Amino acid sequence: MNWIHLVAVLALLEYLAFTVLTGRARVKYKIRAPATSGHEMFERAYRVQMNTLEQLVVFLPVLFLAGRYWPPAVVAGVGAVFLLGRVLYRHQYVKDPASRAPGFILTLLPNAALLLAALLGALRGAAA
Amino acid sequence: MNWIHLVAVLALLEYLAFTVLTGRARVKYKIRAPATSGHEMFERAYRVQMNTLEQLVVFLPVLFLAGRYWPPAVVAGVGAVFLLGRVLYRHQYVKDPASRAPGFILTLLPNAALLLAALLGALRGAAA
Amino acid sequence: MNWIHLVAVLALLEYLAFTVLTGRARVKYKIRAPATSGHEMFERAYRVQMNTLEQLVVFLPVLFLAGRYWPPAVVAGVGAVFLLGRVLYRHQYVKDPASRAPGFILTLLPNAALLLAALLGALRGAAA
Repeated sequence: MNWIHLVAVLALLEYLAFTVLTGRARVKYKIRAPATSGHEMFERAYRVQMNTLEQLVVFLPVLFLAGRYWPPAVVAGVGAVFLLGRVLYRHQYVKDPASRAPGFILTLLPNAALLLAALLGALRGAAA
Repeated sequence: MNWIHLVAVLALLEYLAFTVLTGRARVKYKIRAPATSGHEMFERAYRVQMNTLEQLVVFLPVLFLAGRYWPPAVVAGVGAVFLLGRVLYRHQYVKDPASRAPGFILTLLPNAALLLAALLGALRGAAA
Repeated sequence: MNWIHLVAVLALLEYLAFTVLTGRARVKYKIRAPATSGHEMFERAYRVQMNTLEQLVVFLPVLFLAGRYWPPAVVAGVGAVFLLGRVLYRHQYVKDPASRAPGFILTLLPNAALLLAALLGALRGAAA
């Protein structure tokens, strides 16, 4: 089992699930492409997807980089927090966008921790 | 020739071409930054670019991960379908967004196949 | 010191800083989620972040790929231009979106150079 690869693939699977949910909301609330607004519930689904994309672009590189300098099981464990944070974020955001902070913090904290780990590793320079 | 690297670079080149076409549409239809709406044809070009970005974020990691567990030539071949799917998607979307499904399916299928290949590889764990 | 990893991490740190500035603009100009428009200054901050995301998706892969075929210190140096280009882009865009060209060119040039370097490397195929 390669834990870091597994967490990376699960994060992408989670994100793809969010894009499917956006697609369903597009049909349900009759938002015709190319529009990305027009119904509050569609916009919530779309923003959850976009915010996940915005954070994923940081998450994947720092997950892999941190994994080259620190014990992979620990790095993957921190990455798993990101996976859970995104589930919470979506759940809360769709219910009420104003309640999105806890899920966002559980996204930002693992991202910041992995980024710091990657930075320290790059400065130390002893990549595997 | 490194086929996986080649497919990855071509996907990025294709995406950059889409961003250039969005930039041209911005000038042609006089959409002043920071606006991203205001003319249907600009919005189509912009949404093609954004949808490509949304799928590229999955495509590149699963292409590389799958390539570490499965024969690179096969993985690159599946990746080439993504490249063609995006050309079809753009062509159809700009003509009529309602006809975008075939190109989208030819994006989603290779992405799903590569994601599954990466997942199986990560579970087996015998990365090169 | 691994210069390529360092440039990659700094690019992600810069991008995260832009997302924080967007978040602050959201509060300051009272743009309630899930809206992403409603005040020119918020939209400028948001578009800077999105444009950086759009370019980062190209930058990181070509930085790493180029670094596998060419001297890492040279590749990292070209990457550093991207970091500066983004600071200039943000500074100019927030002041006046019409003045964003120089910062954008300093993003596009290093991206194009690294992409070309990655393409030549992939064609030559002698990856490390």
